[in-house]
Amino acid sequence: MRLVVVGADGRMGRMLIRAVAQSEGCTLSAAIEREGSPALGQDAGLLAGLQPLDVPVTDDALAAFAAADGVLDFTAPAATVAFAELAAQARIVHVVGTTGLSEDDFAKLKAASYHARIVQSGNMSLGINLMAELVRRVAKALGDEFDIEISEMHHRMKVDAPSGTALMLGEAAAEGRGVDLKTVRVSTRDGHTGARRPGDIGFATLRGGSVVGDHSVIFAGTGESLTISHHAADRGLFATGAVKAALWAHPKPPGLYTMADVLGL
Amino acid sequence: MRLVVVGADGRMGRMLIRAVAQSEGCTLSAAIEREGSPALGQDAGLLAGLQPLDVPVTDDALAAFAAADGVLDFTAPAATVAFAELAAQARIVHVVGTTGLSEDDFAKLKAASYHARIVQSGNMSLGINLMAELVRRVAKALGDEFDIEISEMHHRMKVDAPSGTALMLGEAAAEGRGVDLKTVRVSTRDGHTGARRPGDIGFATLRGGSVVGDHSVIFAGTGESLTISHHAADRGLFATGAVKAALWAHPKPPGLYTMADVLGL
Amino acid sequence: MRLVVVGADGRMGRMLIRAVAQSEGCTLSAAIEREGSPALGQDAGLLAGLQPLDVPVTDDALAAFAAADGVLDFTAPAATVAFAELAAQARIVHVVGTTGLSEDDFAKLKAASYHARIVQSGNMSLGINLMAELVRRVAKALGDEFDIEISEMHHRMKVDAPSGTALMLGEAAAEGRGVDLKTVRVSTRDGHTGARRPGDIGFATLRGGSVVGDHSVIFAGTGESLTISHHAADRGLFATGAVKAALWAHPKPPGLYTMADVLGL
Amino acid sequence: MRLVVVGADGRMGRMLIRAVAQSEGCTLSAAIEREGSPALGQDAGLLAGLQPLDVPVTDDALAAFAAADGVLDFTAPAATVAFAELAAQARIVHVVGTTGLSEDDFAKLKAASYHARIVQSGNMSLGINLMAELVRRVAKALGDEFDIEISEMHHRMKVDAPSGTALMLGEAAAEGRGVDLKTVRVSTRDGHTGARRPGDIGFATLRGGSVVGDHSVIFAGTGESLTISHHAADRGLFATGAVKAALWAHPKPPGLYTMADVLGL
Repeated sequence: MRLVVVGADGRMGRMLIRAVAQSEGCTLSAAIEREGSPALGQDAGLLAGLQPLDVPVTDDALAAFAAADGVLDFTAPAATVAFAELAAQARIVHVVGTTGLSEDDFAKLKAASYHARIVQSGNMSLGINLMAELVRRVAKALGDEFDIEISEMHHRMKVDAPSGTALMLGEAAAEGRGVDLKTVRVSTRDGHTGARRPGDIGFATLRGGSVVGDHSVIFAGTGESLTISHHAADRGLFATGAVKAALWAHPKPPGLYTMADVLGL
Repeated sequence: MRLVVVGADGRMGRMLIRAVAQSEGCTLSAAIEREGSPALGQDAGLLAGLQPLDVPVTDDALAAFAAADGVLDFTAPAATVAFAELAAQARIVHVVGTTGLSEDDFAKLKAASYHARIVQSGNMSLGINLMAELVRRVAKALGDEFDIEISEMHHRMKVDAPSGTALMLGEAAAEGRGVDLKTVRVSTRDGHTGARRPGDIGFATLRGGSVVGDHSVIFAGTGESLTISHHAADRGLFATGAVKAALWAHPKPPGLYTMADVLGL
Repeated sequence: MRLVVVGADGRMGRMLIRAVAQSEGCTLSAAIEREGSPALGQDAGLLAGLQPLDVPVTDDALAAFAAADGVLDFTAPAATVAFAELAAQARIVHVVGTTGLSEDDFAKLKAASYHARIVQSGNMSLGINLMAELVRRVAKALGDEFDIEISEMHHRMKVDAPSGTALMLGEAAAEGRGVDLKTVRVSTRDGHTGARRPGDIGFATLRGGSVVGDHSVIFAGTGESLTISHHAADRGLFATGAVKAALWAHPKPPGLYTMADVLGL
Repeated sequence: MRLVVVGADGRMGRMLIRAVAQSEGCTLSAAIEREGSPALGQDAGLLAGLQPLDVPVTDDALAAFAAADGVLDFTAPAATVAFAELAAQARIVHVVGTTGLSEDDFAKLKAASYHARIVQSGNMSLGINLMAELVRRVAKALGDEFDIEISEMHHRMKVDAPSGTALMLGEAAAEGRGVDLKTVRVSTRDGHTGARRPGDIGFATLRGGSVVGDHSVIFAGTGESLTISHHAADRGLFATGAVKAALWAHPKPPGLYTMADVLGL
């Protein structure tokens, strides 16, 4: 499978180049940067800290998509929407790891998915997407007798709390229970809180060191608890997940898919 | 629902009496011990450390079953097989937490289940049974790129390793992968072991203190890991699980069920 | 060693009676309740769910202390101050697990300790007291390059956050660093928090199920983290800790001791 | 502080070059490889994936040591012994992270330490060395009522079990208890093991994924447990530890030191 990496000179772009180069069943056919980027003309392999790949960085996405089977995209919403249209014209796979998409942006991805095979997820790690599925099922299987608590830890530089992934897991838990997360979410506890309200979903946030991302969802019952935890050791796994999504989507009909589809859940 | 507890004077029997007395939707209709037991004639409530329940312990299982809707049974294989026949005659629910059943015993339970509603499981805790389901699904969803390791800890008096529950979780993982646990099980690592063999399922056993039962299944990939853990704080939860199974099976047609059915997985 | 349990009919009192009866090197010489208590005259063993101990509950602390070597006390501040004076007169050991003592109360314990051997701690568990010592040392040994985070989980009925024990651990960490906890404590994180402030000590609170008490202190550095965790499975360990403290203090000179002294730290 | 890295072209050598370049208070004054190494003449910075540092790799350790304040050494026993003699002649700091040293090798390091300041440790991570100190103290403070269990997890390529670091932690625990690890070590449990023998120290080994190194020491008592855990996320921290050791040893008198000295424990 011939893959294009867009945003090739960014932190995630370089990781995607490495992931494509190191995966079986795919090759890097092009690396795209915006007009005027200092990376234009450089070899994509060298850019990513690898041996040369004989793929110079260009700004011609149209030509690149026409000669490819898929594109890996962790850029920004406006760029992603534009790339989706090009992917639709080229009838190729578009893997979208871009975050912060608006409802309007989603509508445009949906439109593009009539001709493109789009895989979109706020977290491209296989483990986290599988975890969200598990949390949904467990929250459904276990009644309110089991209290749900979500704990996460990230590095000291992270500026928001709880993490987007923790909220995604909370949404999955709320869906499993058939409730709206907004009505049961508890993100702070300090001082005299009173007893826990049945049905609440609690969030606890830890910050420190260089932690890439740890998430736990605890189902605490009477006399027992069940905990599902994910540990991310390396940001590179988001790139690996994107490549796996592309390979999976290659033989599929056009449509808008998620990582849960990729995992076969 | 009127429930009979058999083996009423044993450690689990007393816990079952307490669980029935403290659960909604059921009452204790009889408590059975073997002929000659010193508990015969005593009040089942007092026996279990509760207030009197006006239910004297008897050895007449036949009469007790005829006046009940279900029986809770954590005795021994020979007794369980006999109780299953009585439950079939009475067309009631038979919850079996007895361990060490042979294939022949299972055949007899199967035969009895044409008339009785039998729920059988080696571990009646809701959490562990749900965990086994999750492990099966995750092992199937994640390929051999994720190594499976199972860790368990129990109190210092436990005499066998790995725990039966750890093996049950290992079986679930092997089923998910479509392999036979016997061919991939690794229970010891000491000295020069060489690199891990792809596809192996490893077991690590910890013993100490008064730990009731902790189990973890780790799916360790490149750059990430997903862990499912269960913590049992109280042996009483096995009794609670049995009561829940009985209530669930009450309106069901005759058949042989597992805790996975009770959980709706 | 002959021990008196005061507040014999309370939840902790009964646990203390059991702990004394089950420990080597000590016997229950008296069980005290306040004047008018319905437990007066009852056998202390039966009260605690044991076989009779031939020790009827009385309200005569003075006589009981005179015939004893020590007293175990998890009552309330006013009672504890009065018992300390009696213990000083009798020149015996006084183990104080009472919480909520004011500075004035402490001054009175200090005065009594000229004649009594008093062991006082907000948490009588051996593990937690040892943990506080470790946290103090680690916080001192590791500089600000390691961020300190404290996580705790308790059952769903607990009404305050963070737990008193978590705060005790936070105090130990702050002492180790030579800072005032009040100036560095962060108990809530929600929304846009900005990056972590160097030197902060963060608290995360989880509530759910029947958890007796789990505490973790994480020292998170760049590329590594060190975590010290305590798991309390049984409230009875607070009683066991009190008995151990009494046995330790028996041969000691009068003075005001802590569990850290008992542990030899 | 001017530092020399020996074994500059090895995996740890490159990490040491990066650690020196990125630490305050020190500069790379030389990079040494053995005669005939293809790295000779290359720029040490480029070798380590950094910008050029204007330090070409040479094989002249004698000249390099004479113009330096310290040397960082994660090579092999024979080379380390030779470097120690050179460090003694130059009266500089010698940080030794080399593993597999014999008693004879240690004797030679001891001799060299009359003139050199040598810091030696089997694991240069600050966290692990601190953990070993804590384990020693806790094992001493808590009697045999607390069972000691050591659990470790490493990546799937690791060929030995338990890890050297787990054994180092076991030695610390045994020292704390005043026993010989060899007489209490239990590294395998499989089948009918019987109850745990009082005083044993158990090891459990997990292998999988890309785990850099996780170690836990559990002190499991009746009703409570205390656990000390270390998580290594990045092999680079061993290099960082070595640089910190060098900076610490710079103003010290000659002698043989350990990381415990560096940490001030």
